[in-house]
Amino acid sequence: MSMNSFGHLFRFTTWGESHGPAIGATVDGCPPGVPLEADMLQHWLDRRKPGTSKYTTQRREADLVRILSGVHEGQTTGTPIQLMIENTDQRSKDYGDIEQKFRPGHADITYWQKYGIRDPRGGGRSSARETASRVAAGGVAREVLSTLAPEVSISGYMVQMGPHRIDRSRMDLSEIERNPFWVPDAKAAADWAEYLDGLRKVGSSVGAVCEITVSGLPAGLGAPVYAKLDTDLAAACMSINAVKGVEIGEGMGAAVLTGEENADEITMGPEGPEYCSNHAGGILGGISTGQDIVVRFAVKPTSSILSPRQTITKAGEPAEIITKGRHDPCVGIRAVPVGEAMVACVILDHLLLHRGQIGDGPRGQIG
Amino acid sequence: MSMNSFGHLFRFTTWGESHGPAIGATVDGCPPGVPLEADMLQHWLDRRKPGTSKYTTQRREADLVRILSGVHEGQTTGTPIQLMIENTDQRSKDYGDIEQKFRPGHADITYWQKYGIRDPRGGGRSSARETASRVAAGGVAREVLSTLAPEVSISGYMVQMGPHRIDRSRMDLSEIERNPFWVPDAKAAADWAEYLDGLRKVGSSVGAVCEITVSGLPAGLGAPVYAKLDTDLAAACMSINAVKGVEIGEGMGAAVLTGEENADEITMGPEGPEYCSNHAGGILGGISTGQDIVVRFAVKPTSSILSPRQTITKAGEPAEIITKGRHDPCVGIRAVPVGEAMVACVILDHLLLHRGQIGDGPRGQIG
Amino acid sequence: MSMNSFGHLFRFTTWGESHGPAIGATVDGCPPGVPLEADMLQHWLDRRKPGTSKYTTQRREADLVRILSGVHEGQTTGTPIQLMIENTDQRSKDYGDIEQKFRPGHADITYWQKYGIRDPRGGGRSSARETASRVAAGGVAREVLSTLAPEVSISGYMVQMGPHRIDRSRMDLSEIERNPFWVPDAKAAADWAEYLDGLRKVGSSVGAVCEITVSGLPAGLGAPVYAKLDTDLAAACMSINAVKGVEIGEGMGAAVLTGEENADEITMGPEGPEYCSNHAGGILGGISTGQDIVVRFAVKPTSSILSPRQTITKAGEPAEIITKGRHDPCVGIRAVPVGEAMVACVILDHLLLHRGQIGDGPRGQIG
Amino acid sequence: MSMNSFGHLFRFTTWGESHGPAIGATVDGCPPGVPLEADMLQHWLDRRKPGTSKYTTQRREADLVRILSGVHEGQTTGTPIQLMIENTDQRSKDYGDIEQKFRPGHADITYWQKYGIRDPRGGGRSSARETASRVAAGGVAREVLSTLAPEVSISGYMVQMGPHRIDRSRMDLSEIERNPFWVPDAKAAADWAEYLDGLRKVGSSVGAVCEITVSGLPAGLGAPVYAKLDTDLAAACMSINAVKGVEIGEGMGAAVLTGEENADEITMGPEGPEYCSNHAGGILGGISTGQDIVVRFAVKPTSSILSPRQTITKAGEPAEIITKGRHDPCVGIRAVPVGEAMVACVILDHLLLHRGQIGDGPRGQIG
Repeated sequence: MSMNSFGHLFRFTTWGESHGPAIGATVDGCPPGVPLEADMLQHWLDRRKPGTSKYTTQRREADLVRILSGVHEGQTTGTPIQLMIENTDQRSKDYGDIEQKFRPGHADITYWQKYGIRDPRGGGRSSARETASRVAAGGVAREVLSTLAPEVSISGYMVQMGPHRIDRSRMDLSEIERNPFWVPDAKAAADWAEYLDGLRKVGSSVGAVCEITVSGLPAGLGAPVYAKLDTDLAAACMSINAVKGVEIGEGMGAAVLTGEENADEITMGPEGPEYCSNHAGGILGGISTGQDIVVRFAVKPTSSILSPRQTITKAGEPAEIITKGRHDPCVGIRAVPVGEAMVACVILDHLLLHRGQIGDGPRGQIG
Repeated sequence: MSMNSFGHLFRFTTWGESHGPAIGATVDGCPPGVPLEADMLQHWLDRRKPGTSKYTTQRREADLVRILSGVHEGQTTGTPIQLMIENTDQRSKDYGDIEQKFRPGHADITYWQKYGIRDPRGGGRSSARETASRVAAGGVAREVLSTLAPEVSISGYMVQMGPHRIDRSRMDLSEIERNPFWVPDAKAAADWAEYLDGLRKVGSSVGAVCEITVSGLPAGLGAPVYAKLDTDLAAACMSINAVKGVEIGEGMGAAVLTGEENADEITMGPEGPEYCSNHAGGILGGISTGQDIVVRFAVKPTSSILSPRQTITKAGEPAEIITKGRHDPCVGIRAVPVGEAMVACVILDHLLLHRGQIGDGPRGQIG
Repeated sequence: MSMNSFGHLFRFTTWGESHGPAIGATVDGCPPGVPLEADMLQHWLDRRKPGTSKYTTQRREADLVRILSGVHEGQTTGTPIQLMIENTDQRSKDYGDIEQKFRPGHADITYWQKYGIRDPRGGGRSSARETASRVAAGGVAREVLSTLAPEVSISGYMVQMGPHRIDRSRMDLSEIERNPFWVPDAKAAADWAEYLDGLRKVGSSVGAVCEITVSGLPAGLGAPVYAKLDTDLAAACMSINAVKGVEIGEGMGAAVLTGEENADEITMGPEGPEYCSNHAGGILGGISTGQDIVVRFAVKPTSSILSPRQTITKAGEPAEIITKGRHDPCVGIRAVPVGEAMVACVILDHLLLHRGQIGDGPRGQIG
Repeated sequence: MSMNSFGHLFRFTTWGESHGPAIGATVDGCPPGVPLEADMLQHWLDRRKPGTSKYTTQRREADLVRILSGVHEGQTTGTPIQLMIENTDQRSKDYGDIEQKFRPGHADITYWQKYGIRDPRGGGRSSARETASRVAAGGVAREVLSTLAPEVSISGYMVQMGPHRIDRSRMDLSEIERNPFWVPDAKAAADWAEYLDGLRKVGSSVGAVCEITVSGLPAGLGAPVYAKLDTDLAAACMSINAVKGVEIGEGMGAAVLTGEENADEITMGPEGPEYCSNHAGGILGGISTGQDIVVRFAVKPTSSILSPRQTITKAGEPAEIITKGRHDPCVGIRAVPVGEAMVACVILDHLLLHRGQIGDGPRGQIG
């Protein structure tokens, strides 16, 4: 019931504020005997790191992760893994202006109303900086998956920035690493660069949609009611800063389909059931079908913009505010590795849960 | 970590299959001293009950709820409340045809792969019948809310059926109870009746979008990271059968907004902060703002349709299937009271959590 | 975090008051495919049932358990198992005298102070009647264990009644079923019968110590810190009504031992490590050694006695009270099957947890 | 369900091994606005610190605690508090001899069997070093208690070392801080010093019993079934390294009492109910009575002794072992501040839980 933990058997707790000495994640329930070193996690953190292109915040954090526990001679021990990331770039004077004023669209005001704390140094726990801890925890999940279920692969990418969607007929996952937007469509990458540059120059921002797919997952993971695989995926994604919507498979678009259109017909393939389509996004009744899991989430535009907005002060006086900090014109970009990390954690957690309750592999055979 | 429980402090566990002797919910953590009688819960169950119009399944369940524990002389005792609903209409012969074949779009196949159980009597735990237990639990939450936070009100309604959306300029919550679709738009109700009749007659089905709003909620409920109010709302809604997408405020549409468009500007009202808009859906950084909470979810079309679909049998043989049972052409209709119930449980849970950690009311004052 | 649940992966929630219509347990996380019928559970409930000898309360409850869910054609389905026991003997007039007065040693007064509820019908949730639900849940755990780990056996028995201890040199587990005290010492059984008869006739009561042993458990179950096997066993036993102390292995007696006396020396046997003694009670550092698990708990004397005791009324007035109800002169007797049930649940839970995190069997080999 | 967490609403997770770079605790659910600085926690850590007298291990750890998060300008923020203690004295060569041999009475062998990890550097997570993290977390709980419930006080002390018990007629809590054994009996302190010196010189060790009392706690905390106050206290104490038994009030001695002897008669005092005795140890039916809470636990003798013991190697070969490390002749001494810390955490957790479910103060009034 911890308010800062996520997961059932594979469970992590994050801690730390944007401008304190460090942030991190305590990962519990990790299987022992899995090769793990800080470098493996660093790979994923580097993807999320700010300041890597002109399209992300110029705050420069080294984001070096240290493993303080739970690993012995390069292998997990089965005990808690403490992942610590020291904060190095704490130019807190940048935030001086916002000590008394609440930024519209930010958590400043609700944080104050809940905790009575107004931390002008950058959002406290509400800062997107917390997501670095998730990426580190997700890196652990990925390494465990590559040992326990090496056929599973997880890919995240952007499919929409503002009004611009990718063209799925051009979709090519190998493009993801070739552009700063993690977009699997070379033409979209070029178009978006120009579009976002325009927004950046005027100090504006825009929303986005990210998609995460999981392939190679066996059928049978999840549960029919509250520990549904899709329930946990929805919680995982909605818990990411700035996310306002989550979809599985057809998502909100399922509303316009008829039963005939939506049914994924089943055939028998050489290695088991196959499906003629994947409207379900790989999950039926909360349980994986063996098809690709497809999750999407929408990220709202950064609230920090250069246009003045109307607000109030702690004293309740009307005021105008411009947020000058170093921020992302499209936080959706950096949400991609965060979404991947959260999905990796959910998948591993459900593998362990399934193994705990039922043992390895599916119980009911077909054919 | 129970796989059939939901909630933190106010927590319920549902049990029972569609065609066993009974289903129910065990509600734990309910405050003592709250007036509660079975009639109060029956009111909500009657809204969800099948067979109330030609637009919902003709399966006729009395859906009478009995309170077996946790209430003494009309008041909650603070101990677990057991809510039992006996199953009365179990014409299991209707399902004889599907014992060997998997229904596309149904959980039959994944349930079998996970548990090795093929219960031909109607879906087992995956049956929408389970949602009656949620409505009963949600009824308890509503009664507690009306004691602890009487200013809170929760309304659910449909905003889209297939391609047809309501016209928000005509929106009138008083219409909700006047039509079989819980739709707050009289004209939409008339149009949808005709549309759905057409689908019903040809044995087809269609998806829908439901919206739940909570008004009167104080600022400060929720948490900035994993116990976010929106995270729990997303999990609550995604855990409902057939839901494929969840949105808070602007939802997926947040992707197309700019920061200028999305920021809800703040002014000072006579009783505290007020907002010039509510793109956030009443939640900033996981914590309630005091504005209306706005949640939407998409429900896929019923998979049970009269058109033949291609599938396989347990033996792995190709087959064709027509699902003849008694089903809903638009399950989204009956999802409305279920969504309301889940939201009520989340709201009460967060009220109790906030009171536990912080005490009554907001901590930081404004003005 | 449910206040009425116990366990991690194999988890049950009990509900119901002593004099409501029914009590029961909702068992979640049970593996599928395990043979289970009500008769198998009834066997264990009959052992706990009141009124089976003159040494237990004459309240006569049929204690018939019904399985309302989670079992299909004689096998568990992997979904929640609802176990309901209807209350049949509700002579609530017996309790009329205690409506205004608090019984010393009973939970009446604290229950009132916590919940503001004074249920004169027999203790509400504090009634020992709740333990029938545990015995039913424990019966499920036993059946799962006999499928997953058939070499595990669990035995409970009394080792002390008032000042009278068994003579361990005469200990013979086959005696347990031959006397009303579940005592593995024929001579003690005879002596205790006379002793308890004397107490019963004068309306007095006495405490007892019960011991539960688990044999055949593999090494490696548990965890080194908070999910220790002994931590969960201690919680399981202390949660039983009237229990005031719990011991593992040497228990409180470990205080008088030296390191030389306490160390269980290790030798290599044909099938793995063997120990020259078992001071540890089968658990080292929270993890099972493969030796017998040995747990003991002390049960206080029934508070309901015929001698008048000084107390107060709800109005705060001094009063004298005699508790006339139908009660046990030594509740420790009926605590034996309850202790067995709780231990069975803990053992199964840890088997599943271990399988979830680590897979089947021990990881580190010896020899 | 985290295997390294403790508590419900006030919940901490510990991490770190004896000889890694650091250990610590992540404390979640702490109320905001409580004054907290590292010095306040250091006070309690210094009590537990090794090497403070010749009666505790000569391992010299500075045990300096750093607060990495959750505190802003000297006040808790309501978000996770990360407490880190760096390991400074890691003379791992001391342990070289035990790499291949299992130490009898140690967790070496079970740890190996569970995790397949044989960390020769001092016990990994099974090391008593982990308890420093608990003391730090308990220090946080104490500071919150002094804000929310300043009338509560918690005292821990030894009541038995080997066969030597304190004389309760000489008991004087002010003696606790005047001797290295935290014993509230000046004469016992002198006698024990001589006794323990003898054991230390021959490289032996001995067990002990610690007692923790809580005074000033209001009536009404706890719950009647699984979230009993005594259940959580039993789990808290049994989870401490080397503890083999836990008692509340009369504890195991309750077995020899009659109902007449055990009943704590009730009278009306100026401020509410008073009791003529406290056999119950301040808890009836799992709920606090308002009397002193009295918890005791037995600590086994240190397994590290200089006498050779028979054991086996990882290869399964017979061997003899002498444990030369730097260890405590009576670990019970250092268990006192650990027990206090765990009890403080349980008490605060139940205060918050009660406030969450029921609100402030008792619900049922008397008089």
